[in-house]
Amino acid sequence: MEEETSPVSYEDLAQIEDEFEQIDTEIMRKQYILSAPVYAKRQAAIARISHFWPLVFEQAPVDIDQYIQPSDSQLLAECLIGLNVTRFEVPLGPERISEEAGNPRSVCITFEFAENDWFTDQVLEKKFWYRRAADGWTGLVSEPVKIHWKKGKDLTMGLTDAAVRLWEARQKAGDMRAVKLPEYEALAKKVASDQSPSFFAWFGFVTARRWVSAEESAKAEKEKESRRNKRKEGEEKAASPEVDISDDAFDDQNAEVMPTGDELAISIGDDLWPGALKYFTEAQENADDEMSEADFEDDDAEGGSDDEAPIDIRSLVTSKGKDKDKSKNKAEDGPPKKKQKK
Amino acid sequence: MEEETSPVSYEDLAQIEDEFEQIDTEIMRKQYILSAPVYAKRQAAIARISHFWPLVFEQAPVDIDQYIQPSDSQLLAECLIGLNVTRFEVPLGPERISEEAGNPRSVCITFEFAENDWFTDQVLEKKFWYRRAADGWTGLVSEPVKIHWKKGKDLTMGLTDAAVRLWEARQKAGDMRAVKLPEYEALAKKVASDQSPSFFAWFGFVTARRWVSAEESAKAEKEKESRRNKRKEGEEKAASPEVDISDDAFDDQNAEVMPTGDELAISIGDDLWPGALKYFTEAQENADDEMSEADFEDDDAEGGSDDEAPIDIRSLVTSKGKDKDKSKNKAEDGPPKKKQKK
Repeated sequence: MEEETSPVSYEDLAQIEDEFEQIDTEIMRKQYILSAPVYAKRQAAIARISHFWPLVFEQAPVDIDQYIQPSDSQLLAECLIGLNVTRFEVPLGPERISEEAGNPRSVCITFEFAENDWFTDQVLEKKFWYRRAADGWTGLVSEPVKIHWKKGKDLTMGLTDAAVRLWEARQKAGDMRAVKLPEYEALAKKVASDQSPSFFAWFGFVTARRWVSAEESAKAEKEKESRRNKRKEGEEKAASPEVDISDDAFDDQNAEVMPTGDELAISIGDDLWPGALKYFTEAQENADDEMSEADFEDDDAEGGSDDEAPIDIRSLVTSKGKDKDKSKNKAEDGPPKKKQKK
Repeated sequence: MEEETSPVSYEDLAQIEDEFEQIDTEIMRKQYILSAPVYAKRQAAIARISHFWPLVFEQAPVDIDQYIQPSDSQLLAECLIGLNVTRFEVPLGPERISEEAGNPRSVCITFEFAENDWFTDQVLEKKFWYRRAADGWTGLVSEPVKIHWKKGKDLTMGLTDAAVRLWEARQKAGDMRAVKLPEYEALAKKVASDQSPSFFAWFGFVTARRWVSAEESAKAEKEKESRRNKRKEGEEKAASPEVDISDDAFDDQNAEVMPTGDELAISIGDDLWPGALKYFTEAQENADDEMSEADFEDDDAEGGSDDEAPIDIRSLVTSKGKDKDKSKNKAEDGPPKKKQKK
């Protein structure tokens, strides 16, 4: 033990943060395992509610909503039929031999779509791995996902295709930092010219900094673990401090289609997904409010065709029946309308 | 089991949310128990860093910062010497006989102050109980805390005193909803006239809706538990639905000194407290940036006395020594300056 009067070192504080992070990891893993059966039950209930996920995305918090352009919104409203989030590194069920295995920060987000005019994919699955770089940086990295856009329908204006092409060219070159490639030039040019990309550009996300491979991460984790053990054995002062993150000069952001794609993944996984029923209920309440307003303002005014009326989605999920008189059950007829952003 | 084609009822969804909430409670309790020794270690380290908590409050996120008026900021900067957060309903140490006991949402926030010009209290402790009302509402309620302001120094302009007086009058009247009291009129008038109260008005917070006693809450929890058990036994449809929250017409917000005081407590407990080292580091980095700017812009310009120089707090906590040439160790000389709000 140090004396009360000795100064606190940066490493002392980093060690405390490291202990908190280890507890967080354990707790997140535990929560994932405990919640899995309830999420399964929720998925079964949601499957019986039409337009559930489009309504949830309608009501998404600003961290997510800011990425959704009007054309994205139309696509989601018309065709999104399912969403799933898994912490794929944490084994569930019979595969699970220990509660200590797997980082619960790694996340897989799966979108399911009805047949549509934009692309031929029925499922788009985006995986994010939580990794540690050689210099101590930690965060989510991902591989670009190919979207099979129909001709002239690519909402990302070629961004996802270009991201996939650079990825493949770098793999072929055996260098995931290669910049002297025509595919790099092509992507960097596209990235520079597209200031507010489609939500779907997110499927091309790789990293908020630079790619970190599974091998690099495993080695860095091992070194971290070894420093941790040395500290535990009282060799605190002997343990070499972590390399400063700023020592790694390579930054791949000129060729990143969505530099904050990791934050978007976290917002979907940690907020939209667990809060889906809350957002859905809010969307219903808003729809109710709009109905009431419409009733009051211009009940039979011109220009308001039945198809444009907001959905009374509550009638689909309530058993109280207090709105029965106005429940026209329009949900099957059309997608919800995009709300005005505040 | 219901058939796939049957509609989803509001109660089905509420039941799923209830299951998630029970898991959250268990997880929060577990995290609190696991983290307690690390928080103790952090408190010991923090105690050796001067101006730690003032710097953290300087860097507080907007959810908290919006409540801090310039005069509050001065008080906190000059006199706040300690902060502690406990989940007092969850027993730690030898008192703990089970990991199932106590709601971890109930929170106690303790401020410790150096002797100062504003009030005579050295400790101000604010407790929030997580309670369930008879109609199903859940949330944090608190009792007003008396602050012994020195003459002419009350930053709340009498709000905390008036809140305490109403509380005592209601206790005496045996009715915590009583409004026909001179103390109610006095507080309501003060509340109506003070649109941006001091941060310290928060110590007078009672409820975002109305007071809920321990007895009312215990009874409501018991009923909730009984409904839960009935559902588990398959009497799902027979279980009477929860009373709608809107059925309770009484609202005590005309006499509430800070209607969002519960949110402020949650922000301090769930964000500022666990993130304190992060905020402190950010504050240091900002101080460094300011130093560099000052060095560059007007190294020896007039008007910049030593007392007004930003603290090079990093010199107090770093063992790297790379800033040694400019570490004047001014931290003991004065409080940090309040930053401009964006």
